[in-house]
Amino acid sequence: MRLLLLATTAVLALSATTASAEEGMWTFDNFPIARANQTLGTNIDQAWLDRVRLSSVRFGGCSAGIVSDAGLVLTNNHCVATCVANLSTQEVNYAATGFTPRTREEELRCPGGTAEILTEITDVTDRVKAAGAGLTGQDFTRARDAEIGRIEQEACANPDGTSAADRRCQVVSLYRGGQFKLYAYKRYTDVRLAWAPEDRAATFGGDLDNFSFPRFAIDAALIRLYENGQPVETPTHFVWNDDRPVTGTPVFVSGSPGATQRLLTQDQLATVRDVVLPLDQLIASELRGRLVRFAAESEQNAFMAMDPIVGLENTYKRGLGRMRALTDAGFMNRRAEAEADFQARNAANAEFAAQFGNPWGDLAAVQPAVRELYAPMALLEGGTGVGTTAPGGGSVLFAYARTLVRAAQERAKPSAERLPEFGDARLGQVENGLMAQRPVYPELEQVRMEWWLSKTREWLTVDDPRVRTLLGRESPEALSARLVERSTLADPAVRRALWEGGIEAIQASDDPLIQWMLSIQDVTRGVRSEWETRVQAPTEQASERLAAARFAAYGDSVYPDATGTLRLTYGLIEGSDVPGQRFDGFTTFDGLWDRATGSAPFDVAPKLLAARDVIDGDTVLNMTVSSDTIGGSSGSPVVNEAGEIVGANFDSTVLTQRNAYGYDRDVNRSVIVTTGAVTTALRDVYGMQRLVEELGAD
Amino acid sequence: MRLLLLATTAVLALSATTASAEEGMWTFDNFPIARANQTLGTNIDQAWLDRVRLSSVRFGGCSAGIVSDAGLVLTNNHCVATCVANLSTQEVNYAATGFTPRTREEELRCPGGTAEILTEITDVTDRVKAAGAGLTGQDFTRARDAEIGRIEQEACANPDGTSAADRRCQVVSLYRGGQFKLYAYKRYTDVRLAWAPEDRAATFGGDLDNFSFPRFAIDAALIRLYENGQPVETPTHFVWNDDRPVTGTPVFVSGSPGATQRLLTQDQLATVRDVVLPLDQLIASELRGRLVRFAAESEQNAFMAMDPIVGLENTYKRGLGRMRALTDAGFMNRRAEAEADFQARNAANAEFAAQFGNPWGDLAAVQPAVRELYAPMALLEGGTGVGTTAPGGGSVLFAYARTLVRAAQERAKPSAERLPEFGDARLGQVENGLMAQRPVYPELEQVRMEWWLSKTREWLTVDDPRVRTLLGRESPEALSARLVERSTLADPAVRRALWEGGIEAIQASDDPLIQWMLSIQDVTRGVRSEWETRVQAPTEQASERLAAARFAAYGDSVYPDATGTLRLTYGLIEGSDVPGQRFDGFTTFDGLWDRATGSAPFDVAPKLLAARDVIDGDTVLNMTVSSDTIGGSSGSPVVNEAGEIVGANFDSTVLTQRNAYGYDRDVNRSVIVTTGAVTTALRDVYGMQRLVEELGAD
Repeated sequence: MRLLLLATTAVLALSATTASAEEGMWTFDNFPIARANQTLGTNIDQAWLDRVRLSSVRFGGCSAGIVSDAGLVLTNNHCVATCVANLSTQEVNYAATGFTPRTREEELRCPGGTAEILTEITDVTDRVKAAGAGLTGQDFTRARDAEIGRIEQEACANPDGTSAADRRCQVVSLYRGGQFKLYAYKRYTDVRLAWAPEDRAATFGGDLDNFSFPRFAIDAALIRLYENGQPVETPTHFVWNDDRPVTGTPVFVSGSPGATQRLLTQDQLATVRDVVLPLDQLIASELRGRLVRFAAESEQNAFMAMDPIVGLENTYKRGLGRMRALTDAGFMNRRAEAEADFQARNAANAEFAAQFGNPWGDLAAVQPAVRELYAPMALLEGGTGVGTTAPGGGSVLFAYARTLVRAAQERAKPSAERLPEFGDARLGQVENGLMAQRPVYPELEQVRMEWWLSKTREWLTVDDPRVRTLLGRESPEALSARLVERSTLADPAVRRALWEGGIEAIQASDDPLIQWMLSIQDVTRGVRSEWETRVQAPTEQASERLAAARFAAYGDSVYPDATGTLRLTYGLIEGSDVPGQRFDGFTTFDGLWDRATGSAPFDVAPKLLAARDVIDGDTVLNMTVSSDTIGGSSGSPVVNEAGEIVGANFDSTVLTQRNAYGYDRDVNRSVIVTTGAVTTALRDVYGMQRLVEELGAD
Repeated sequence: MRLLLLATTAVLALSATTASAEEGMWTFDNFPIARANQTLGTNIDQAWLDRVRLSSVRFGGCSAGIVSDAGLVLTNNHCVATCVANLSTQEVNYAATGFTPRTREEELRCPGGTAEILTEITDVTDRVKAAGAGLTGQDFTRARDAEIGRIEQEACANPDGTSAADRRCQVVSLYRGGQFKLYAYKRYTDVRLAWAPEDRAATFGGDLDNFSFPRFAIDAALIRLYENGQPVETPTHFVWNDDRPVTGTPVFVSGSPGATQRLLTQDQLATVRDVVLPLDQLIASELRGRLVRFAAESEQNAFMAMDPIVGLENTYKRGLGRMRALTDAGFMNRRAEAEADFQARNAANAEFAAQFGNPWGDLAAVQPAVRELYAPMALLEGGTGVGTTAPGGGSVLFAYARTLVRAAQERAKPSAERLPEFGDARLGQVENGLMAQRPVYPELEQVRMEWWLSKTREWLTVDDPRVRTLLGRESPEALSARLVERSTLADPAVRRALWEGGIEAIQASDDPLIQWMLSIQDVTRGVRSEWETRVQAPTEQASERLAAARFAAYGDSVYPDATGTLRLTYGLIEGSDVPGQRFDGFTTFDGLWDRATGSAPFDVAPKLLAARDVIDGDTVLNMTVSSDTIGGSSGSPVVNEAGEIVGANFDSTVLTQRNAYGYDRDVNRSVIVTTGAVTTALRDVYGMQRLVEELGAD
């Protein structure tokens, strides 16, 4: 689950009817305290919840937890991998050596890194719904988007009307349009890397062991929140508890799971199975092949491609797990039964039918359009909400150019009329991402652009007018070479000038990538517009009725689908004993030494290996818990009843990937790196005694 | 449809109940003469059929037709692409220049090329069925295989008991075990290349235009049959007719379509959709990525990888068409209705149920085993009959080593106890393939082996004992490098010595690939054995009852699934007018000049372009016909009522790929290169006047 790919549209909702006692990614304002205490035998209360929430951090697409009173935060190493790559060169490569600053002053800022703490939740359902009342199609989506933009802007405005730089306000659609909540965050844009292990210490077993257990990975890192050039004081934080974990212990996992699709109807899931996942997986697999070969060409290429390959392989393997779930007859039959039960309850009440209509039928009627439009929307515009494919193939330069061109075009309009991602309340975040200083590797950029152009041409066909607009008479290879070689957008000063110069500067730019991006806007905006009209709006409207019908049928004892916002889940420390997934819930350093073969990815990182004699081999390294997690939960603090942190979530098993579509207590296991392993690594391997002391772990 | 990937097991059967008048890949001994004449308004007879059959040639995985009295044979250029690659070097690259021998003496022998003409068909159903009577599991498959081996050996024996080198005898399972027929062929092992165009003239539009229409491809080549060092006299041959083709003209296509799966039950197709195609397509896509990047690294690599990439892309795109069919609700619903009709007819007759049992249920019960065993069987052993994945990743050295090791092990046993592919009747063919002189490119070999080992480890998981046997403690990269670098099997003399030295020579060999191949035999044979027991035998037994039930329900007005053996299909020259596939049925050279952009793959081949002024631009280049074809039909002669050849089949549209599972008259269109285009190319472009005269086309 290492990477989060946040769905930007079609945020979905709700649990199955046959909910297990431990099912649910609950919001903090509707957490079932009594049910959790009863299930686990614990005694938590609202004050406990508040402390946990204020100690929980969203960091990029990951989760994290504050672990000292000086802004120190525990997350996964894979959550800082891009930061480490950005701070590294081939010569000074922190992925190879680990990052071990001797003093707090040597901690380095992560380019573009931001961290957020959820401070307030407000219900704005009525306002949002009123904005779309009586409208259809794109009018509906745009009216609501505009109202959402206004709500966010008002809530995060300084007294003088400007947007507050240290806050973020986000309206979240919950229960698939059943509720809208305003989430307000305290925001930190200066996040520094305090410690990262050698990459192999975190990724032992690599892609082969990813999404499996037993595991032997110190997938942990420490970052620190800064404000005004100083570490942030954080009196509210998790207390470090590195005692040996015990099977059966109740735990809570607090994090920001990215997206689940548990309320998708069976028809919608068939579209994911037949159209979305095949496209996403097939083209990702080809990119993987290109990158694997690219990396084998030279050490320099290997350095450039390492982080992208890890991310790609993670997404791909997660997709395999999802395909497996969608073609598992037993799992899908249970889901179909739950849908039938829901439909029966709805049909049994004449008022319900009159009130909610037939949302299942309405959603079924949308599927042909999804099947037709998924490929062009995903490849040319992205943000489908159902898949992972996005334009540009991950090229950083492409993303810069698109942001610059669109921001310039949109900022010329009133905030309410813009594409919602460029509303005033969100511009600060856009600018922050754009200006962060990141390395750009032209060779890698070209691999990505070339692959993306070539796959777009292949899937949409060479005679598609949109493809002709993209390519003109050039080949994907020639066009991508020309754009990447001649673009100057890798230079932050160039980006700054274009950002500040607005649409005139964009139009006057002689950067070929900017000019090309301008030339394809009619096509890409057209695809988006068609998607919004034929897919997004009717889906949202039917889904809202489906959510209302579900509240009517099952009351409010349900939780919303994950939306990349803070949730609390709970479960027990325990192993697994089902076919294909049998293990007790713990591994130790001794197990690591045993599994090591010396060949990558089963080679022990050099510093870790060198410390073998001083490490207590019986220390628990990783463990599994039954909590309900998904991509984005990476780095989530795992907390005991006392509110002490005992580990950080970093993975789950491949069978657990079905949790995108439904929680299955029998197989759902999240994989945790223990605080004990982190203490051991800091103290015995990386010489980070100053952090051990800061954690109070000595 | 460029490449044929022959299914070696599970050869399937029969048409749908709602057969169109033009549906069917008919055997020559059961061709519906009256029905065809009635449908087309033609007047063919048995003598016509015999002439067509004796003028039809199977060439490798392709089809072809004799077009002169001196053994000249028309096929597709893509059918000789491997021959061209084998005869070329980077310096003398016939793919780039075309192959244009000035005299017959300069025609070059295709390494390993064989051609066959079907001379006799004999029913051996009773003998084969009797051999398996009362047996189950592996006993059943092995007893039948042994009997089939005996039948083939007897039929092709010389008077002294040795196998006749110039004949081939093959027992073919038709109607999925409903009938067994002995096919006897005249066999030619000296096949020479007489003409090939520039590759780009044949592949204009490349993978992008593959499986589409309009097309502008001179995908034609000429080979010649030799015997005793002399061209074969072929008084029976197709007369060359290069008149301008006319819409609505009846045509017959005579060729060896590879494999259809039209009698698979819906449950079996779900397995193909959920398990087989995803594995095949996903790993093929990664290999494609590796090869694309490999080819971009140098001109030498591009030369080596060209032929493999074309083949791979063809198979992959065909798979996409099949996935699209299996997820097309309309198409699959029609198929489900046909199955329901069949079941209803069966249920309506109490005797039927008693006689045939419930083959649908029995096949459904086998599916969990197919789902479990497909990955190991496909990756470690191949020959699943349902998918395209095979061990070794296409490495030539791997194939040599496997054949040598297994042949040595098997030849130590009596013929009837061997793996069937090593029965006495088949050994000559095995030896011929093994000894053919082909170039081996170590760099490419390593790409293939490394990919295959890496994907096998990924899909079976790193802890699978079979994977541990394959890899030991080595990585896929290290193992493949070691095996490829140090193997001497590229040398035909080494192969000859090992073949002749038998098991002692194999065991004493210090070739690392031979030793490694020996070391994995227990594992790979074990996987095959489990597949035969749990999948193949119960599938064949249930399928045989299903075939019998179908004969009972629908009589004998049905045709068997394609099996790579000679069939005759019929239809009309016509375009298409359904959504997503609208075109009239013809393209011309003028259309080619119009479509050309100058950028690959839309660049006109240099010699072809140079001849633009002398070519009549209105000459029809390609056309479409409604005949029922599939991969393996490539090169099939397209014949008019008079028995004259008017073109060669070389492709079909992507929507036509559903014909693997059922013929759909609305969309089924085969793509043909006309004899007119071939005459034009020979005369106006390639200076092959001697062949124009031989064809009587001047």
